This record gives sequence, structure tokens and C-alpha cells, in this order.
Amino acid sequence: MKTYLDCIPCFFKQALESGRIAGASKRKQKIILDEVARQIPKISLNASPPQIARVINRILQKITKNNDIYAQIKKDSNRLALNIYDHLKRKVLHSSDRLLIAVELAIAGNIIDYGAKNSLNVDDELAKILNAETKAIKKENKTIFDYEKFKQVLKQSRTILYLADNAGETVFDRILIEEIKRIDETKEIIYAVKEKPVINDALMEDAFACGIEKNAQVISSGVDSPGTVLSLCSNKFLKIYRKTDMVISKGQGNFEALSQPKRPIFFLFIAKCPVIAKDVGCKLGDVILKYHHIKKLK
Amino acid sequence: MKTYLDCIPCFFKQALESGRIAGASKRKQKIILDEVARQIPKISLNASPPQIARVINRILQKITKNNDIYAQIKKDSNRLALNIYDHLKRKVLHSSDRLLIAVELAIAGNIIDYGAKNSLNVDDELAKILNAETKAIKKENKTIFDYEKFKQVLKQSRTILYLADNAGETVFDRILIEEIKRIDETKEIIYAVKEKPVINDALMEDAFACGIEKNAQVISSGVDSPGTVLSLCSNKFLKIYRKTDMVISKGQGNFEALSQPKRPIFFLFIAKCPVIAKDVGCKLGDVILKYHHIKKLK
Repeated sequence: MKTYLDCIPCFFKQALESGRIAGASKRKQKIILDEVARQIPKISLNASPPQIARVINRILQKITKNNDIYAQIKKDSNRLALNIYDHLKRKVLHSSDRLLIAVELAIAGNIIDYGAKNSLNVDDELAKILNAETKAIKKENKTIFDYEKFKQVLKQSRTILYLADNAGETVFDRILIEEIKRIDETKEIIYAVKEKPVINDALMEDAFACGIEKNAQVISSGVDSPGTVLSLCSNKFLKIYRKTDMVISKGQGNFEALSQPKRPIFFLFIAKCPVIAKDVGCKLGDVILKYHHIKKLK
Repeated sequence: MKTYLDCIPCFFKQALESGRIAGASKRKQKIILDEVARQIPKISLNASPPQIARVINRILQKITKNNDIYAQIKKDSNRLALNIYDHLKRKVLHSSDRLLIAVELAIAGNIIDYGAKNSLNVDDELAKILNAETKAIKKENKTIFDYEKFKQVLKQSRTILYLADNAGETVFDRILIEEIKRIDETKEIIYAVKEKPVINDALMEDAFACGIEKNAQVISSGVDSPGTVLSLCSNKFLKIYRKTDMVISKGQGNFEALSQPKRPIFFLFIAKCPVIAKDVGCKLGDVILKYHHIKKLK
């Protein structure tokens, strides 16, 4: 997805929020915003939002002298999500369509997103997910929900690349990964996280903290952008990305980075900003299971 | 009020919205945002938001080659508000405290604010005001409402300076001005508008279009900022401002420009942004009748 002009005010909001989380003084917060402002005339709107967010992330790291501003938040998100793992698991167990609930929970977990929401109370958001009825997601919020296609492609796929989004959300990913393995334990799942800290995106350590490695091979995509920007990915990752039978992409950032891919992808995310909602053609807050398929030339 | 760092994302939003209203192409919209971005490192946060909004307004006028971007919107707002003048008047007539309702309506009219709201459907907003019960404003939204003081100072004042805010809102101001004159026709009311176009702020022509001149002397404050920034005002205006018995200041912009004045002022506005709400100590959407009084040294 190209960057919309409406993303520009939001870059400033995100930078300010991150500066505050880093404990920057007001003077330093202004220096951060000034530096972001200096980048605006240089950026091309052909770049995707995660490409620009990566530049802003580097500004933040440099000025705050903190390379992992969300370190504590990520740890807390993992812990809070792990605390409700048994609850989530029970939701799946008691369902007549276990895979569906696992998919819905994996998307619901995408609410733990500091990049899109700017401010967030993870505890409150998790409580909302837990208090929801057996079906985690209301029908009216499932405007784009290619679940039948998801089931069909999943059945046919031997290898699955699962693109992680945020820390904490990884626990919800684990639920879905476990369900996929339960259905067919021969499936090979690769879980790709970010290489270096950017906002609250999951890193290797978050995947391991949340127990992903028990059912999937954890790798890094090589990027430090809050979305899997292919031009920044490692060759090792790209090889897997191209060859794998199925790609499950979590989160807005990965959708923004990959929205015009040359291979089929399932995008799972919550539409958390009006720009994304408009781009996708859904309402704000909708849960999206969007199948991007490649039309074959006749 | 000093500019908060949180105002910076909002400046970009406002500039983008204005660029779109001016019909600027996407390329021109980006040029506008780039130019706003270039100003950010230069601005001092000691300036008030209207001072910065004035700089942005000039950028917009220059790039869009349109000196009055909101001209049509202002005309429409005047017309729509005049259409409901009789209804508003009846609300006042049928009330047991006519002045109170007139004050409440004057504040309710402050909803017609493109500076704070970014996008707005004036028709919808006016319908909401009309559909409200006799009391225009709910009690829970009147957290700061110094009405008794307002009545008292009004009674003692012979000359009143009324600082206008937006076009259309002028009709609501007229209702209050007429009520003040009905109570005591000897009171001298001066209604001050902006000198040059800035967002949808009322100009001389808007005051006349809405019939203000029948009960008040209409003057210009001399500014082209969306708030009465004293350092930009004409000497003629400043003389009146200092000497007048009572100042009634409408809108967020005037509050931002004048929030630490050296003279008593009544601020009438709706708290339309979280920064203002926090600064004032009220909830978002609250209607404010705030008396700024000068503490005498003992």
C-alpha cells in the first residue's frame, strides 16, 4: 500500500507517543518532531507506511538513545497474553469449528498494536476479547472474511509461512498454529519475526517467550520496519517467502508492506485506522481475513 | 495558551483538509504538507496555536492561489444558520431564563468550527442543536459554567466587546446580542471579526450577512489568525479591548490566543479537542462558559 497523505499527521502522532514512552523530555520530544518534519519533504508517497515508519523509528532510537523503546511494553504484553492462554485455548476447545475460532482469536490478538493505536491498554483489550461470546468476532465486523478459501488453501498446503506482527499477539498466533498442527501435524510452519526492535513488533525473543517454537520454526525476516518490506528482507527469508505453499500475514503493517504481492497471501488483521479501512473497503474496527490471489493471464 | 506538541499532528490534518477544500491536487496537497513540515522546526511552542495556524493559512493561500478557501462554506453556514434563526429565537422566547438559553445557544453555535473539527456537516450539527430540549445544553456537559458571574458582570457593564469566531456561528451570537439589548438597550456592544480570511472565521461580510449590525457596531480586530492574537491586532481594536467593561470571547481559537489575558474575559466555547479539554480541565465536547478574572495583589 502506498502512503496516503492522511498518514502524515499520524506519523507525527506515533513519533510523539513513542518519544513519550521512551521518557523523552518535552524538549527532546520537540526535537523528535522537528526531525520527523525534516523528513517529510524527502519521502515519496510511493513508499509504504512501514518504510516511512522505519525512518521515524531510527530517528526515535537516535534521539532517545534507546534502541528498544517498547521493550518493557512487549514483555508485559507477552506476559498478559500468556496469562489468558488457557482461557483462549478453552474457547477453541469448546467450539464446533475450532479452526474458525482459532483464526478469529488470531485476528482479535491484532488489537495489541502500538503502531496503529498510538495509545493502548493491553489489559483492557485482552479482557474485551475474553469477555466476548464463544464466537470471538461479531458477524457485522466480518465484512471481508475469506474463511472457506483459507480452509481450502490450508488443507492443500504442506509449508506455511506465518508473518508475525506484535509481541503479545504472538500468543494468539500460537493458538492458531497449534490448531493447524492439531489438524495435520505434518504441516511445516515457519514463523517470521522482525530482525530488530521497531515499535512493539515481535522479535525472536517474543516468539520464544510465547512458546511459538514448540510448533513452528522461528526465523527473522531481516527487517527493522513495522511490516515485512520485501526490499529490506534477507535472502534467506525471501527464498522461503517465494517457495512456501501458503503465507499467513498478520497485522496492518504487514498488509501495508505487502498489499500488492506477486504471490497469494492471506491477510489477517483488524482495520484500526480510517485510511486502511478505506483502502480495504471495510469499516473501522472490522476484522479482516482477506485472500489476495493472483489472477492468471488467460 | 502555548502550543502543545499534540497540536503538531493536528496542524497537518488541518492543512490537508483545507488543501482538499481548496480543490488542490494530491501533488499540491503534498507540497502543502511539505511546506508545513518545513515550518515545524522553526516554530516556538511558546506561540499560541492560532499564531501557528496563521502561518499555515498563509502557506495554503500561497500554494492553492486561493485567498479565501472557505468562502463558499462560510456563505452556506450563514445561510443554514439564518434558516433556523426563527427557531432559535422561539427557544429563547419560550424559556423561563431567556439570557441563559441565549448564552447556551451562542456556545452551541460554536460547533460550526472547521479549525478544530477538520471535517464537519453544518446541517447535521444545526439539526442536533434544534432537536435538543428547551435547555440547549445537557447539565453534565456544563462542568465549567460561570453563568451567575456572567449575569452579574453583564449587569454592571455599559460597553461590551464581543469577539466573533466562525461564520454561521454569528447567527447564534446575534441571538445573544439581541437578548442583551432586550434586557438593557443602552448597552453598547462592539462585535469584532477577523480582518482577512482564515479558515471559516467570520469576517465583516459574515457579520453583516447575519444581521449583527442591527444591534452592535461591527469592527475588525485587524488579525488574519484564527484567534485574536493581541500582538497582531490593530491599535484601534486594542484600545477598545483594554477600555471596554466586559469582553465576551467566542470559540477555541480566541481562548487559545487570549487564555492568559491581563483583563477579565468570559470565554464561551465548546471544548472540541482533547488538548483544550485537558488544558481547561473538562471533558471533550463540554460547553464552557469560563470567567477569567484578574486576581488583585494584596
